[in-house]
Amino acid sequence: MTDRSPAASSASPHPLQPLFFPRSVAVIGASTDPHKIGGRTFRYIKDNGYEGALYPINSRYAEVQGRPCVPSIGELPKGVDLAFVIVPAPGVVEAVRQCVEREVANVVIFSSGFAEIDAEGAALQEQIGAMAREAGMRVLGPNCMGVMNVPTGLWGTFTGSFDYSPPKPGRVGLVSQSGAFGIYAYQLALARGLGLSLWATSGNEVDVDVADCLSYFAHDEGTDVLVAYMEGCRNREKLTRALRAAQERGKPVVVLKVGSSEVGAIAASSHTASLVGADAVYDAVFRDYGAHRAGSIEELVDVAYACSQGFYPPSNRVGLVTVSGGVGVLMADAAEECGLEVPELPEAAQRKLKELIPFAGVRNPVDTTAQMINDLSLLETNLSLMLSQGGVDAVVFFLSSIGLNPRMMEALTGPLFDLRKRHAQSLIVLAGMFEEKLTRALEEQGYLFFEDCNRAVGVVGALARFRAVFNTPLPQPPAIPAGLPALPSHAVSEVEAKRILAAAGIPAVEDTLATSADEAVAAAAKLNAPAVLKIVSPDLQHKSEIGGVLLGLEGAAAVREGFETLMERGRKAVKNTSPDATGDTDARLEGVLVAPLITGGVETILGVQRDPVFGPVMMFGLGGVYVEVMGDVTLRLAPFGEAEALKMIRRVKGYPLLEGVRGRPPSDVQALARALSQLSIFAAAHGDALESLDVNPFIVLPEGQGALAVDALIVPREG
Amino acid sequence: MTDRSPAASSASPHPLQPLFFPRSVAVIGASTDPHKIGGRTFRYIKDNGYEGALYPINSRYAEVQGRPCVPSIGELPKGVDLAFVIVPAPGVVEAVRQCVEREVANVVIFSSGFAEIDAEGAALQEQIGAMAREAGMRVLGPNCMGVMNVPTGLWGTFTGSFDYSPPKPGRVGLVSQSGAFGIYAYQLALARGLGLSLWATSGNEVDVDVADCLSYFAHDEGTDVLVAYMEGCRNREKLTRALRAAQERGKPVVVLKVGSSEVGAIAASSHTASLVGADAVYDAVFRDYGAHRAGSIEELVDVAYACSQGFYPPSNRVGLVTVSGGVGVLMADAAEECGLEVPELPEAAQRKLKELIPFAGVRNPVDTTAQMINDLSLLETNLSLMLSQGGVDAVVFFLSSIGLNPRMMEALTGPLFDLRKRHAQSLIVLAGMFEEKLTRALEEQGYLFFEDCNRAVGVVGALARFRAVFNTPLPQPPAIPAGLPALPSHAVSEVEAKRILAAAGIPAVEDTLATSADEAVAAAAKLNAPAVLKIVSPDLQHKSEIGGVLLGLEGAAAVREGFETLMERGRKAVKNTSPDATGDTDARLEGVLVAPLITGGVETILGVQRDPVFGPVMMFGLGGVYVEVMGDVTLRLAPFGEAEALKMIRRVKGYPLLEGVRGRPPSDVQALARALSQLSIFAAAHGDALESLDVNPFIVLPEGQGALAVDALIVPREG
Repeated sequence: MTDRSPAASSASPHPLQPLFFPRSVAVIGASTDPHKIGGRTFRYIKDNGYEGALYPINSRYAEVQGRPCVPSIGELPKGVDLAFVIVPAPGVVEAVRQCVEREVANVVIFSSGFAEIDAEGAALQEQIGAMAREAGMRVLGPNCMGVMNVPTGLWGTFTGSFDYSPPKPGRVGLVSQSGAFGIYAYQLALARGLGLSLWATSGNEVDVDVADCLSYFAHDEGTDVLVAYMEGCRNREKLTRALRAAQERGKPVVVLKVGSSEVGAIAASSHTASLVGADAVYDAVFRDYGAHRAGSIEELVDVAYACSQGFYPPSNRVGLVTVSGGVGVLMADAAEECGLEVPELPEAAQRKLKELIPFAGVRNPVDTTAQMINDLSLLETNLSLMLSQGGVDAVVFFLSSIGLNPRMMEALTGPLFDLRKRHAQSLIVLAGMFEEKLTRALEEQGYLFFEDCNRAVGVVGALARFRAVFNTPLPQPPAIPAGLPALPSHAVSEVEAKRILAAAGIPAVEDTLATSADEAVAAAAKLNAPAVLKIVSPDLQHKSEIGGVLLGLEGAAAVREGFETLMERGRKAVKNTSPDATGDTDARLEGVLVAPLITGGVETILGVQRDPVFGPVMMFGLGGVYVEVMGDVTLRLAPFGEAEALKMIRRVKGYPLLEGVRGRPPSDVQALARALSQLSIFAAAHGDALESLDVNPFIVLPEGQGALAVDALIVPREG
Repeated sequence: MTDRSPAASSASPHPLQPLFFPRSVAVIGASTDPHKIGGRTFRYIKDNGYEGALYPINSRYAEVQGRPCVPSIGELPKGVDLAFVIVPAPGVVEAVRQCVEREVANVVIFSSGFAEIDAEGAALQEQIGAMAREAGMRVLGPNCMGVMNVPTGLWGTFTGSFDYSPPKPGRVGLVSQSGAFGIYAYQLALARGLGLSLWATSGNEVDVDVADCLSYFAHDEGTDVLVAYMEGCRNREKLTRALRAAQERGKPVVVLKVGSSEVGAIAASSHTASLVGADAVYDAVFRDYGAHRAGSIEELVDVAYACSQGFYPPSNRVGLVTVSGGVGVLMADAAEECGLEVPELPEAAQRKLKELIPFAGVRNPVDTTAQMINDLSLLETNLSLMLSQGGVDAVVFFLSSIGLNPRMMEALTGPLFDLRKRHAQSLIVLAGMFEEKLTRALEEQGYLFFEDCNRAVGVVGALARFRAVFNTPLPQPPAIPAGLPALPSHAVSEVEAKRILAAAGIPAVEDTLATSADEAVAAAAKLNAPAVLKIVSPDLQHKSEIGGVLLGLEGAAAVREGFETLMERGRKAVKNTSPDATGDTDARLEGVLVAPLITGGVETILGVQRDPVFGPVMMFGLGGVYVEVMGDVTLRLAPFGEAEALKMIRRVKGYPLLEGVRGRPPSDVQALARALSQLSIFAAAHGDALESLDVNPFIVLPEGQGALAVDALIVPREG
C-alpha cells in the first residue's frame, strides 16, 4: 500500500480526519467467520495494509482471526478514533452509548432497521443522533456500507465485492448516500481503471452526510476529484460550503442527484423518508457552485474518469480528428450540443495538413481518410500540428476500430507516446475501440479513452467548464443591510405589497385607492398617462376574470364611468363568491385602485419560493405564458448581487425579447437586475419566515427608463 | 454457414436481389496476395462458405489463390449477378463499360477518386452513372467498402477487420453511407453479440443508396431489424417508400443521421459533396415514418441490440425493480424522460410483494433491498408477480454488480431461466454489471443486458414506440384535387396572396384597397368591427417599422385621418428607401388596405419552405416571438390530412395557449387543422415551383368561430 499521511492544507485538522485517517480502529461485533459481516470487515482491515491499532471486540472469543480480542466496548482503550458497530439494530443504541463513554471519536453503523423502516426506527435513530451530538462524537450511518481509505488499506466495509474486486488506490474520492449505489459506482470506476483515495457511504445520515464527506475530500491532499451520489440534502450550508471549498482548491465535483421526475421524487422520498428540496433547485445550486450534475451513472463515471487525468483545457475550442468523415460530423454535432466550439483551423495549419494528407478534410473536423491508417507515422505530425497551430486546447481523435487490430495497435503506440511527449499539457481524448492493454498503457501517459465518440466529446465540454469554474472565484453573497422592511403578518397584495417592495428597493407603480368616483377622477388627473382602474377586494383573487380591471381610461368622464362600472361588477362578484355573506357585501369592497397605464415595456415575473432545504429561492421568467406554458424560468438561491442577477436574466430562453426583437427597443436590463438582486436580499433577510413572493408583472421599460412592479403578492410563512 | 434462400415475401423479386443474393460473383482485380485489397476480397468470398460461381479476373495469372483465373472481363460468362471492381480510379470507367457489355447485373466499386475528390472525379462518376442507368445495371459505390450477406458467406469487402473479427450471422441488416462507419458499427454490433444478415456501404451513391438498401432489408425474410447510417438523402421518394415498407412489415428502423449542428452540416456537405436537406426535416421524416433517430453511435447499437430480441411491449407501462433504492429513483427519472409510465402497482400486487420482502419498497419502482441478494429464490417470484399482476408490459431489473460475483452468478441463472419460461413473451431487461458468460447464456433466453440503467430504460421506451408504430398504419397522403389556384409569377403578399389562399381553401380576412380617403371611409363603414389600415407599397417590406399600420379605427373621421397619415408616412418612407427614385415616388404607393380588426384570437404562423430533397415542408408555430425567439415550431412533409395536422399542432410546446389558458376560451383548433392541411395540399400541388409561403399571422378564433389569414407572402421559385 502507498504510504500516505493525512496532512491537509489547512492549519487545523478537518473534523472528519479521524473518520478517514483513523490511528486506531475497533470492530464491535468482529466475527471469527471471515465471510460474515463482522468477520469480513475485520479481515479486510487486518489484511490490506492498515497500520494503525486494530481491536476486534467480541465477548465470546479470546481471539478473532488470529488477533487478541477485546471482550467488550467498556474494555477498549479510551479515545479510539473509529469504531464499526456491527450488531443488530436493537443493540446499536447501547453500543453507541458505550462508545461515547470510551470517548470514541467516530462510529460507523452498518446496521439497518432505523428511519428507513418506520417511526420506531426513526426514534431509535434520533436517540443515537442526540447522544452523539451531545458527546461531540461523529456518526456515519446507520444503514450504511462504511468507509474506505484505499491508500492506507482501511477497507471499512462488509460487502463481498472487495473479495473479487479489490480496490485500486488513486486520487478520486467517492461518497454515496446509498450503500448499494456506492458499491456499484465503485465497481464501475474500477472497471474503468479509476483508482480511489477515499470512499464513504452515508446511509441514513443521522450525522455525517454527503456534504461533510465532500468537505473532507476538498481538504484532503490525496484527493483530486470529488464524486457524489445523493438523493437529497438536508443542510444548505454544509453543501454549499463543501462545494465552495472544492472550487477554491480547484477540485472538480461530479454529482448524481436522483429524483428529477415526479415518480422519481415520490420514490426518493419514500426511499429516504426525508423532506428534500425541489429538484430544479439542485440544478441551480450545482450549476452556480460549479459542480457537474450527471444525468446517469455512466456520465458520472465518464466525467470522474476524465477529471482523474487532470487536464482542464483553458478554452472551449476543440479540434476533432477522425479516420471517418461521418464520425467527424457526428462529433461536431456533439460538440455544439455541449457548448464546445469547433473553430475552422487557421489557413496555414490547413495548408500544412493538406501537404501531409492531400485527400484530407482539413477545416475541422479533420478527416484524415484511410491514408492515415495506411501510414500511421502521419498521426503524430498531424495531431501535433493541430495542437500547436490549430488554435484549439483539446483534441478528440476518433480511430474507429483500428485499436483492435493487433498489427495496427503496435504501430500506434510509438507515435502516440511521441505525441504525448511533445504535448505534455494538452487534453487528448481517443475515441473508438481499443484493446485493453493498449488503453491502460496510454492512459498512464495521460490519454483518455472512450468507445463512444459523443461521450468523448461530452467530457471535453465538462472539463472545459471545470476550468472556467476554477478560474472564476464564486461570488460572495451580498451583505444584508439593516433597515429592510418587515414582513406583513398575513398575505398582502397590491398597494401594501408594493409599498413593502418599494421600501426594499424594488421600484413599483404608485397607485391610489379611491373610495369614490371623485377620488378616482382626482387621482387620474395627477397621472401623466391614461389610467388603469382595478377593483380592490380581499374576496376577489382573480380580478381580470370578472372584468375587474379597466385599462387606458382617459378623461374625467371615462374615469368616473369606470369607477362605477367596477364597483357594480365588484358587488355582483362578491355576492356570487360569498354565498354565506349577508346583504352587506359592500363591507368587503374596498374601492378602486387608480394607477398609470404602463406601455412599451416587457412583462417579466420575479418570484421567491421557500424551499424546505435551501430557503428562499429566486425565480425569474418572462411574463405570463412564457412562465406558465413554456416553463421558461431560471432559479438561484437568495441572496445575490446584480452581476449574478444579470447572468440569471440572460439564461432564460426568451432573453432576446429583452434585448429588443422585431423593432422593439432594448429593455432596461440593468434596472431589472438591480430589482432582482434587491428582492433576493429582502428574501434572504427574512429567510424561512417568507413563504412566497410574486412580483407579477414586473414591467421592464426601454433602456434608461427603469422597471416597475405593477402587482405583487407577499405570503409570509404560517405558524 | 447457414443455408439461406433469398425468398422474399413479395411476388416479383426485389431489384437488388442479385446484389445481396448473387448466384455468381466476379472479382475484377483479384490478387494472388491474400492481404492486398483485391486478394483479400477474393479470399473472403472464397473461404467463408459462398456457394455460387466465383470468377477471379486478372490478366497476369492463370490461377488466383488456387482458383482458375478469367483473363479479362470480356471473357466472363454473360449475365453474372455481381462484379467487384477493384482497379485504380482511371480504369474504373472502362471496367464498368465492359461489365455492361457482359450484362453484369450489379457492380460494386471500391475505388475512390471520384466525386469526393474534385469536379473531374465527379464527372467520371457521372459517366459511370449514365452508363449504368442506360443499361439497367445497378452500381454500389464508388468509394465504398462493399456488401456482405453473412449467412451465405458472401463477405464482399476488403477491410482487414474481418480477419480478426469475423462476422456472426443474425437478423440485423446494417447499411452505412460511410465505409469507415460501416466497419465501426459492425465491430460494435459484434462486440455486443449482435448477428448480421446483410451489410452494405453505399459510399458516393452514384446509384444504389441507403434507402435502396433499407428497401431491400424491409423485403428480406432473413432481416428483422434495419439499421442505417446516413449523412444525407437525395431522394425523398426512395427513403419514405423504404420506411413505409419497413413499417408495413413490422420491422424497426434505427437510423443515425449526422449533421444536426452548423459545423456538422458544413462538415457533412464537404464530406459528401452533396446538397442534403435541412437536418430538422429529417427529424420530422423519421418521426412521422416511425423510424428511431439515434443521437449517438452507442444509441444506434443499443436500440438495434434491443430490437434484435423482438420484444415490443404493447404499452408504455414499465415496472422497475432494483436492489438499490436510489437507482430505482434514477430509473424512474429516466422512464419519464423517454415517455414511459411507471404506474403504481395494484394494491393486491403490492400486498403480495410486501409478504415476500417485508422491507421492500413495493409501489414501483420496487426496491427489493439486500434481502433479495441474500435469497435469490425471491427473484423469480418477485418479477413473476410484477409481470403477471403489476399491470406493466416490461420490466427493468437493476442487479448492481452482483452479476460479477461468481457465487451469485451461479445462483442467479436458475431463477432467471425459470422466469423466462413463465413469461416467454415479456420484455425483461437486466441492468448492472455481469460476467460475459452469464450475459450470453441469458441473452439466448431473450434477456437484454445493459450496464447503464438509463440506457436500459431508454430502449424500453424505443421498443414501446416501435410497437405503437407497427400497430398504426401510416396515413396515406391526401389526393391533390384538380382546380387549385395557380402560383403567381412573382412574389405576392397581402390582397393577392390572400385571394390565392382563399381559393385554395384557406380562409383569409377580406380587405379592400382604398386609393382615396373616401374609398377608405366607405370600406370601413361596411365592416362589423373597428378598422385596420395598412399602407401598401412594393417598396415597403416592414410596414410596422415605419408606422405603416393603424389598428382599431372607429368612425369616418378617424378612418379619413388615418388614411392621410399613412399616405404621408408612406411617401416619406418610400423616399428614404429609394434614394435613386425620381421625385415621382407616388408611383410606388398603391394605397391603403382597409380590413376589419380581428380580436380575441390566438396568433399562429403557417409556413411552407422548399427543401432541396424533401420538397415542400410545412411549418407550424404560435405567432411572433414563440417562433422567432423560442423556436417552438414543428415540421411535416406536405401533403397531409387534418388528422396529421392536428397531431402537428398539438406538438408545439405552446399548444396549451390554443386550449385556452388564463381564462381564455379554447380556440378553433379544427379550423386551424383544416387550413394547415389545405395549405399542405396546395404546397404539394406546386411542389418545387413554390419557394416559400408564409401565412403570418393566421389568427385562430374561439371554438366554432373559425380561423383567418391576416397576411401572407407567396414566393414562387425563381428560374
